Amino acid sequence: MKIPSKYIENAVDQIASLPGIGRRTALRLVLQLLNRSKEEIDDFSQAFQLMKENVVKCSSCGNVSDFEVCSICSNSNRDRSIICVVEDIRDVLAIEATETYKGVYHVLGGIISPMDGVGPSDLNILSLIDRIENEEVKEVIFALSATMEGDTTNFYIYRKIKDFEVIISSLSRGVAIGSELQYADEITLGRSIANRQPFSL
Amino acid sequence: MKIPSKYIENAVDQIASLPGIGRRTALRLVLQLLNRSKEEIDDFSQAFQLMKENVVKCSSCGNVSDFEVCSICSNSNRDRSIICVVEDIRDVLAIEATETYKGVYHVLGGIISPMDGVGPSDLNILSLIDRIENEEVKEVIFALSATMEGDTTNFYIYRKIKDFEVIISSLSRGVAIGSELQYADEITLGRSIANRQPFSL
Repeated sequence: MKIPSKYIENAVDQIASLPGIGRRTALRLVLQLLNRSKEEIDDFSQAFQLMKENVVKCSSCGNVSDFEVCSICSNSNRDRSIICVVEDIRDVLAIEATETYKGVYHVLGGIISPMDGVGPSDLNILSLIDRIENEEVKEVIFALSATMEGDTTNFYIYRKIKDFEVIISSLSRGVAIGSELQYADEITLGRSIANRQPFSL
Repeated sequence: MKIPSKYIENAVDQIASLPGIGRRTALRLVLQLLNRSKEEIDDFSQAFQLMKENVVKCSSCGNVSDFEVCSICSNSNRDRSIICVVEDIRDVLAIEATETYKGVYHVLGGIISPMDGVGPSDLNILSLIDRIENEEVKEVIFALSATMEGDTTNFYIYRKIKDFEVIISSLSRGVAIGSELQYADEITLGRSIANRQPFSL
């Protein structure tokens, strides 16, 4: 696919550099942009520059934020003694959407993954230990992915904080609500039998 | 999904304004951008502004181009007496990729679609008639989509140019090469029997 304009070619390269977008899709998106007015293109372009200039990491939990302390950490209605450890902002949004959690978060910014060259020092782990040491933390909830990398990260943090007086819990795993038993995978179903709960209405 | 940063929110809105990209995907892409350096973000943003400032329509065929006359129209090896009428630049790229066409193009910039409010005056049709009138054109090839809108556009242009001394042809329609007969749709298969061709090796 030889594009007859180096400016379009360059814009396609930039869009195609985003994860999961191929050059054919990128060309479709770029041609749609080309049909917009100069003002719309300026708004589009500046959105990313403004974001890069203004978004910082919350000095407490490491979540992305427009201010030094994010809106969750600075909310006096949240229980600062419970910390939910997550991988990135999308997990925060997912848990916030449930409207059932009233504690605060700690965003690691990734999980330990030697294959991708991500070690413990690349993550926001020291500041978590610092919070547990210096703030009145009663409980730490592990809410990382149920993958080998997630389990490794859980174990690494567990070893670092197990001597503090803090309850360490993790999300319950089991058959999803609304799903049919016969379609659950063996590992999930097996674990949900082993970890069966008292029946309640 | 309530994003705790208005700058990220704005960037997500801009990415989600592209066709076929939802807010969840947009957030994933925006977070990936946020991890890039300031220079990379500047390159990303400026690509679209540079494109808008520099890309023009070829004064002859209407294709997008960095120059007043596009690289195909200004190529002396192309046969300017054959004009292939297409909808947009992606069709030009698709035909160019076949490396079998040596004529030039005329890019309409869309097809007649009353449902979307696109009429003949919104398209690059007058300049096509102008080319047929004033240049030595021997053949016009219709290469629009085989849809009702494409057929309508073909018919509209046909009525405008039928009195000129010019051969009017259209892409052959039929069973795709390499595809199995049993999976061809009835209309395509029916037409390919009606329009059968002399056998050749």
